Amino acid sequence: MTSEGDRLAELAKRRGFFNQSAEAYGGVAGFYTFGPQGAALKDNVEAAWRDRYVTREGHMEIDAPTILPESVFEASGHLETFNDMLVECAECEESHRADHLVEDHPDADIEDAEALPNEEVGTLIGKFDIACPNCGTALAEEPVDDFNLMFGTNIGPGSSSPGYLRPETAQGIFVDFPQWAEYARNQLPFGVAQIGTAYRNEISPRKSIIRVREFTQAELEHFIDPDTDEPPLERVEDVVIPLYSVTEQQSDDGGVQEMTVREAVDEGIIETDWLAYYLGLSKRWYERIGVDMDRFRYRQHLSGELSHYASECWDAEGELGGDWAELTGFATRGSYDLDKHAEYTGEEFSVFQQYDEPVTVERPTVDPEMSFFGPEFGGAAGDIVDELASLAERNPDAFDSSTVTLDVDGETYEVPTEKTGFTIEEVTESGEQVTPHIIEPSFGVGRLVYTVLAHSYQQDKIDGEERTRLALPPEVAPTTVGVFPLMDKDGLGERARELANDLREAGLEVTYDDSGAIGRRYRRQDEVGTPFCVTVDYDTLDESTVTVRERDSTEQVRVPISELAETLCTLRDGNVAFREL
Amino acid sequence: MTSEGDRLAELAKRRGFFNQSAEAYGGVAGFYTFGPQGAALKDNVEAAWRDRYVTREGHMEIDAPTILPESVFEASGHLETFNDMLVECAECEESHRADHLVEDHPDADIEDAEALPNEEVGTLIGKFDIACPNCGTALAEEPVDDFNLMFGTNIGPGSSSPGYLRPETAQGIFVDFPQWAEYARNQLPFGVAQIGTAYRNEISPRKSIIRVREFTQAELEHFIDPDTDEPPLERVEDVVIPLYSVTEQQSDDGGVQEMTVREAVDEGIIETDWLAYYLGLSKRWYERIGVDMDRFRYRQHLSGELSHYASECWDAEGELGGDWAELTGFATRGSYDLDKHAEYTGEEFSVFQQYDEPVTVERPTVDPEMSFFGPEFGGAAGDIVDELASLAERNPDAFDSSTVTLDVDGETYEVPTEKTGFTIEEVTESGEQVTPHIIEPSFGVGRLVYTVLAHSYQQDKIDGEERTRLALPPEVAPTTVGVFPLMDKDGLGERARELANDLREAGLEVTYDDSGAIGRRYRRQDEVGTPFCVTVDYDTLDESTVTVRERDSTEQVRVPISELAETLCTLRDGNVAFREL
Repeated sequence: MTSEGDRLAELAKRRGFFNQSAEAYGGVAGFYTFGPQGAALKDNVEAAWRDRYVTREGHMEIDAPTILPESVFEASGHLETFNDMLVECAECEESHRADHLVEDHPDADIEDAEALPNEEVGTLIGKFDIACPNCGTALAEEPVDDFNLMFGTNIGPGSSSPGYLRPETAQGIFVDFPQWAEYARNQLPFGVAQIGTAYRNEISPRKSIIRVREFTQAELEHFIDPDTDEPPLERVEDVVIPLYSVTEQQSDDGGVQEMTVREAVDEGIIETDWLAYYLGLSKRWYERIGVDMDRFRYRQHLSGELSHYASECWDAEGELGGDWAELTGFATRGSYDLDKHAEYTGEEFSVFQQYDEPVTVERPTVDPEMSFFGPEFGGAAGDIVDELASLAERNPDAFDSSTVTLDVDGETYEVPTEKTGFTIEEVTESGEQVTPHIIEPSFGVGRLVYTVLAHSYQQDKIDGEERTRLALPPEVAPTTVGVFPLMDKDGLGERARELANDLREAGLEVTYDDSGAIGRRYRRQDEVGTPFCVTVDYDTLDESTVTVRERDSTEQVRVPISELAETLCTLRDGNVAFREL
Repeated sequence: MTSEGDRLAELAKRRGFFNQSAEAYGGVAGFYTFGPQGAALKDNVEAAWRDRYVTREGHMEIDAPTILPESVFEASGHLETFNDMLVECAECEESHRADHLVEDHPDADIEDAEALPNEEVGTLIGKFDIACPNCGTALAEEPVDDFNLMFGTNIGPGSSSPGYLRPETAQGIFVDFPQWAEYARNQLPFGVAQIGTAYRNEISPRKSIIRVREFTQAELEHFIDPDTDEPPLERVEDVVIPLYSVTEQQSDDGGVQEMTVREAVDEGIIETDWLAYYLGLSKRWYERIGVDMDRFRYRQHLSGELSHYASECWDAEGELGGDWAELTGFATRGSYDLDKHAEYTGEEFSVFQQYDEPVTVERPTVDPEMSFFGPEFGGAAGDIVDELASLAERNPDAFDSSTVTLDVDGETYEVPTEKTGFTIEEVTESGEQVTPHIIEPSFGVGRLVYTVLAHSYQQDKIDGEERTRLALPPEVAPTTVGVFPLMDKDGLGERARELANDLREAGLEVTYDDSGAIGRRYRRQDEVGTPFCVTVDYDTLDESTVTVRERDSTEQVRVPISELAETLCTLRDGNVAFREL
């Protein structure tokens, strides 16, 4: 985040995109506020996400609380495993991420210290004689500890009901899976989406909105039957995607490979076809919201990077000031979360999937004669009977001879088969309980907003004068149209304000500005990415036409007021290009 | 929340409006999840709010974090005063709100126990022999304590940086006031709005979404110059509003008075004209989103109820199952918050207001001769000089005679006037620093959603069959149009699916349903408040027309497909009524 980051931070603060929160209080690392322009841009990115991943895919969207009780995170594994490596300086008491210290050390040549055990990272700190970046004291003697990244709190008075701020919106979806399944009439596949706040108590947040402690996620949890559900791959099979696979990352001269979604699946570079589907779909979406495709790639997670619940994961990454930042994680979570919640609650986190036709299956069962087992085996009888039931299911052939041999707790028992009540029943089944697998595209909205700003930032010269402009797509620009009177006199101001109101009524985002020379007003709108500006001049009063000026080309056309709202809506929705007017 | 509440809770859960979160884990009191229908309804209510209070009023909207550092809440007063009265049962350890126990006691006849001191509430618990509602043990001996309602947490490792989840979105706006003032080019009045999550760690949340621990607020902070800024009262002066003033509440036979906004201001019933403006504006808005005006009132806060920062406050209240629930608080916060944040940070939380013309004022100043004061008064010299400067400003006449008499720390000093360097300078000032006053309409979005559901809930008979319907305004209904094929055969299904997609493209919220008899599909849509249903039948294939059916009247009209999207948009936006088609 070198000079690109600095330029953007200056613009962001001055023009109301984002700033560190509570600056008068010195700010707190990792907390940012979106100002009027930033909040509007963020809102538009969220609307574009909802359009693409909820409405058009036919999924449902929910809105769950950010605080959940401790038991949920015991089950999900976050309480035990959602940790970063902490090393504290004994001298100045500053906290640091131990793995980052190692990765940042020039001699270490280690890219993924997070995947190493704590002790090894501690050893590396000693080996390279790494000092506290804050005060310079050697850290070699300090322990590397696990630090849990969840913000904790207490629900109600006292401390008997601990809760945590969710580290991902996903858990709010998973814990109420039985509701969503019922709502989906128990038909797989179905998707549940959520846009909301998530929290990670980062040890040392970086000074930008890329690694923060509170952020907005847009997550889709797609519940599929792993045996039968296939993604509609044909819709995206021709989309060319830039893949940076594990193999390429581990090869000395590896790099990004451009290929179609279909090729990536056929060649086994992407293993899970559902992930391939979302990678194709999302490539188009990133382009739509203004991510520069020359500064974009999909990178596969190395095995040490995978979350505790994931088996295959690809990150969409955007290039920012020379570094790559994760924008979205596309993960296969399997049935991990639903299994865990079922285990901890004793409730059903599965759906009954009806077969097309009922099937008849043979089911081995036992019905042990307890009057024999009790006296014969005493205290071991219970375990022996349990093992018999299990064995019947696993290996019915074991009941073919006159005695059955069993291993229970290291002991071997011989049981007369006739006392086990072993039979094979024919059972007709209309379906089965299936615990869905989860495919999860998880987007960081703030990071998307930042990337779109960085990638749209342009500087050029107009009539010999430097200008800064954000080349934002009209769909996401905070303001769609700036409305100016040539001057605020002779009724031009009134006419322009009236027009601004009419355009607002038509659903456009409008800014009215009558302050300063026209050229300066254009510059102000260019700088916040407003794609179109309308000027009301003396001809407007006579002929009821206005000038529409396009941001990037600075070209202008004359449009009748009667057609203005529709023309601007069509331009915004991308149904016509400005040069075609 | 008697049977009305029960019926609504059943519908809400079954049809995906809302449910208690994490029910598989037994749920946690005060946390609710909005399902697909509820999230869509909530989203539409928020969009209607944004349209009314941000876009049309020309205000800015921001998005600030939910966690703020402790120092912010020290300044705002929440750390000290944002408490409820807690009494704990020694037997079962259940926590209760002491004031509610007293208010709920049939013999107590006390409506506002919150306004009493803790000790007095403790005495009343003893006097009326109030027992623990959970286990029946007497609470007379238990102390009544302050319990702070903010959820606390720690930012970063360790506990050196405490933070709190914001109890109102407002503080996120106030702490960055200097930013917003700059962004508004230091021109008062201006408004800053925010829709976001707020948290109150209620002692005993009620089982509904009315009193919860985590909720969405939509708040507008309108910063005004109290001396010069007037609201545009003429826009709403004729709106008739139902007012339940302090006087009426305290009178034996008092009741709601219906009057125009102008009358309320002229008769001094509403003291602050800015509040009157928002009461008028909001009455229309509640009507627009579906609050029943026969179950609605504005109630003035009694003096004991006022928040620590407010001087006048009116609540919009909706009637729910016989009780009145607060939907919005309209408060005058004065300059309280900005003063406090200025005091705690030493930064400017004011704006420089330019006068129309510069004014010349006389400013008394002193320039004490320190070579005299030092030797003469020793250690007291500094304090004496400070007091001289202060006195010159307070009472310049004190410098009229040859000696000035001063009181400093209880001692009296005589100082020769000639040594004080007293003069009166003529200063030309172009403006002054003004700390704006704040007018705050603060909406609880979940409560609005609940009220709109309760007030739109209807049961009637269609062709002798009972039906449940939500008479939601089309603007806020989760789905605008249900699209059905008469049957899913002969190409009707394909045509209907295609039509559903076309309507989605036109920006409508669409549900496709081909399951069960048409009558049942209508019932399903009636129950979630879908205002219009479109049926594709055999005539559709021949003539390219469809049937559009309206929810409340159940009337049907035939509409050409070519006009369908526009007709439905016009109906949704309220620009034409169904019977006019």
